[in-house]
Amino acid sequence: MAELVGNLLVAQSGGPTAVINASVAGVIQEAGRHEFIEEIYGGLNGIYGILREQLIDLNDEKAKSIEGLKYTPAAALGTCRYKLDFKKKPEQAAKDMDRLFEVFQAHNIRYFFYAGGNDSQDTNHKIHEEAVKRSYDMRVIGVPKTIDNDLPHTDHCPGYGSVIKYNAATVMEIASDVSAMATDDGSCIIVEVMGRSAGWIAAGTVLAKRAPDDAPHIILLPEIAFDEPKFLERVKETVARIGYCVVVVGEGLKDAAGKPLSADSSRLDSFGHPVLSGMGEFLESLVTKKLKLKSRSVKLGYAQRAAAHFASQTDATEAAACGEAAVRAAVDGQSGFMVKIVRQSSSPYKWTTGLQPLSDIANVEHFLPRDWVTEDGFMPNEKFIEYAQPLIQGEVKVPIEGGLPKFVTLERSPVEKKLAPRE
Amino acid sequence: MAELVGNLLVAQSGGPTAVINASVAGVIQEAGRHEFIEEIYGGLNGIYGILREQLIDLNDEKAKSIEGLKYTPAAALGTCRYKLDFKKKPEQAAKDMDRLFEVFQAHNIRYFFYAGGNDSQDTNHKIHEEAVKRSYDMRVIGVPKTIDNDLPHTDHCPGYGSVIKYNAATVMEIASDVSAMATDDGSCIIVEVMGRSAGWIAAGTVLAKRAPDDAPHIILLPEIAFDEPKFLERVKETVARIGYCVVVVGEGLKDAAGKPLSADSSRLDSFGHPVLSGMGEFLESLVTKKLKLKSRSVKLGYAQRAAAHFASQTDATEAAACGEAAVRAAVDGQSGFMVKIVRQSSSPYKWTTGLQPLSDIANVEHFLPRDWVTEDGFMPNEKFIEYAQPLIQGEVKVPIEGGLPKFVTLERSPVEKKLAPRE
Repeated sequence: MAELVGNLLVAQSGGPTAVINASVAGVIQEAGRHEFIEEIYGGLNGIYGILREQLIDLNDEKAKSIEGLKYTPAAALGTCRYKLDFKKKPEQAAKDMDRLFEVFQAHNIRYFFYAGGNDSQDTNHKIHEEAVKRSYDMRVIGVPKTIDNDLPHTDHCPGYGSVIKYNAATVMEIASDVSAMATDDGSCIIVEVMGRSAGWIAAGTVLAKRAPDDAPHIILLPEIAFDEPKFLERVKETVARIGYCVVVVGEGLKDAAGKPLSADSSRLDSFGHPVLSGMGEFLESLVTKKLKLKSRSVKLGYAQRAAAHFASQTDATEAAACGEAAVRAAVDGQSGFMVKIVRQSSSPYKWTTGLQPLSDIANVEHFLPRDWVTEDGFMPNEKFIEYAQPLIQGEVKVPIEGGLPKFVTLERSPVEKKLAPRE
Repeated sequence: MAELVGNLLVAQSGGPTAVINASVAGVIQEAGRHEFIEEIYGGLNGIYGILREQLIDLNDEKAKSIEGLKYTPAAALGTCRYKLDFKKKPEQAAKDMDRLFEVFQAHNIRYFFYAGGNDSQDTNHKIHEEAVKRSYDMRVIGVPKTIDNDLPHTDHCPGYGSVIKYNAATVMEIASDVSAMATDDGSCIIVEVMGRSAGWIAAGTVLAKRAPDDAPHIILLPEIAFDEPKFLERVKETVARIGYCVVVVGEGLKDAAGKPLSADSSRLDSFGHPVLSGMGEFLESLVTKKLKLKSRSVKLGYAQRAAAHFASQTDATEAAACGEAAVRAAVDGQSGFMVKIVRQSSSPYKWTTGLQPLSDIANVEHFLPRDWVTEDGFMPNEKFIEYAQPLIQGEVKVPIEGGLPKFVTLERSPVEKKLAPRE
């Protein structure tokens, strides 16, 4: 394989995670080991910024800052949800693709790494195919990232271990709070977590259980249709037995018709009006009204996605390794693949990285297997626990200044623009 | 002062915090140093359990467990919101008071320590007065506790430093997430924190600001009437300037008439129906509709109250010291006081403990001074920052098992009952 001399471009896409910056650090550090990779550029805000020729010179950053990306949450290069949507907006997408290759050519980009979830891998796939079509010699490797853990073919996704570690610890702490309060009638708390279609995040909170009666007592997964009477009965039973009930719900919980509950305007509150609140507040209100039970809710929202202060070291290590593996694959002449994590054993936990063709990844969603959940649908079982347990091991060490995390901010030294502004 | 020989009873009351158990540890460890304190009992679930003669023998606990209370959140003895309400339920309160003294006498309780907020100090006060009235020789000292930080006369309350440390870190992380996402139109995130009447908790998130444009950009305090047009204008301005806006709101935000906004059925949603959701979702919906701006909300709820995994070591140390000081005061013959924290200097931070008569504390609420907030009412100023900054220093070290916190659970060896069951 002839050494491909040229520049590298790395960018981030989709919702941030606690460890996506670790992947970028992995790309940069590995790229620094290969002399024929000349410049190391970052694209600001994914293709949203690349289309605007907003590139920064990552070789200008301090080595300490790059290392600091391994404990800095969110997306240090900025991110976006912008897509090359050839189905809905074919003209715009074609124009964007032309523009991307103008940018690649103007800056002699020969290595392109895009870290993200399903949509971003689709973008990688299209860019790879376009490069082949144009006979433009560029190696495109996708770096997996998503707290949702719904990419296929990879054992799990960087970002997932950290979100479930933080969420499980939070459920544990909430449970210690709720269980401490003596009341005559008991109480219920609903913890809403992310996950619009896959229940991986909600399922992960089962790790908070060290004994059968530990919280969470019910986990409601978007994959399993909400059965209101069965749910209320289970809450009642739990409160009768131990005095309180901790429920975790994935935000995308659906009814039997597959309709998201929180957006369901056919559900009426006690005034006969549509319920418009989020899933946590919806269930809080349901439990309060139907069971006359004190109920409260917590909605972790973005807090869970960037919680570097209690991120998983295993996750951060794997995220960095995925970035490094992407560069090594490209240097070895590969293109059109996504790096995947391959589990070799669960106990002791052993893993390595591999490559999967991007054509197998794009737009395929990976759901929680039904047989990883108890028959009643309320709790992930030992198969899931064996899978998830290793992913939350170790704590990322974040430097503290004045009692609060001290994250890294990049200098973002801009690369000189060579093109006319985008139309 | 003659040494008062007898038993000690310590109990917890009101909403849990990350460090109220540290106060109990302080009481137990200090009590162990005084030989004439014979038995060290814990009352389960505050007076709710004491009325039921539910006492446990804390001398039976392992020393390691007692030390472990210093990193274990919530209330290891259990807690309650039960009051001796002589105003609304005079007969029940009188009966309860008789029963309490039956329990005290049956178990020769001569030292009584109740850790809690306003209501609990009121209980302490009444028990102290009753003991004097009955000539029952018992020393009653209140231990301060409340995340709300609204007890008067003490510089601040144990529990407060930890909640604002966790909340400020969370706001910092949420901001790194929101600011990373490039959008054409900007976005807004609302973080709902606790605080029904006092804004101390919301104010504390100002510590997340290291630069003028850092989050939070707006803090809405329950003490300052919500001005919707001014608020929306400020959100718009902020998004125009930096692309996003992070808003922190205390759950008890009120309108100019002093009415809590979230319970305000005169406010209608786009369907003409009363808004019933929590404060975060209420503002999220307001910003979305009025500014046509992408908006999301986070409701930290109980998660903030028990977040030992990122608690303040300063707070935990002070909480333990308050417990110790309570015992020392009682041993010195004092009764009818609450321990308070006295600040000697802010920079360097120096503090000690003092005593305040319970009659000065009970049912008095301490609000954020108006001159600690900017004129526009949207941000605590440097006076508040000087006050709050020292309270979040240092991190409590929590042991980890399997990637998650390993908190202490007490054995709870029951003390043999001597009375007939409560009617």
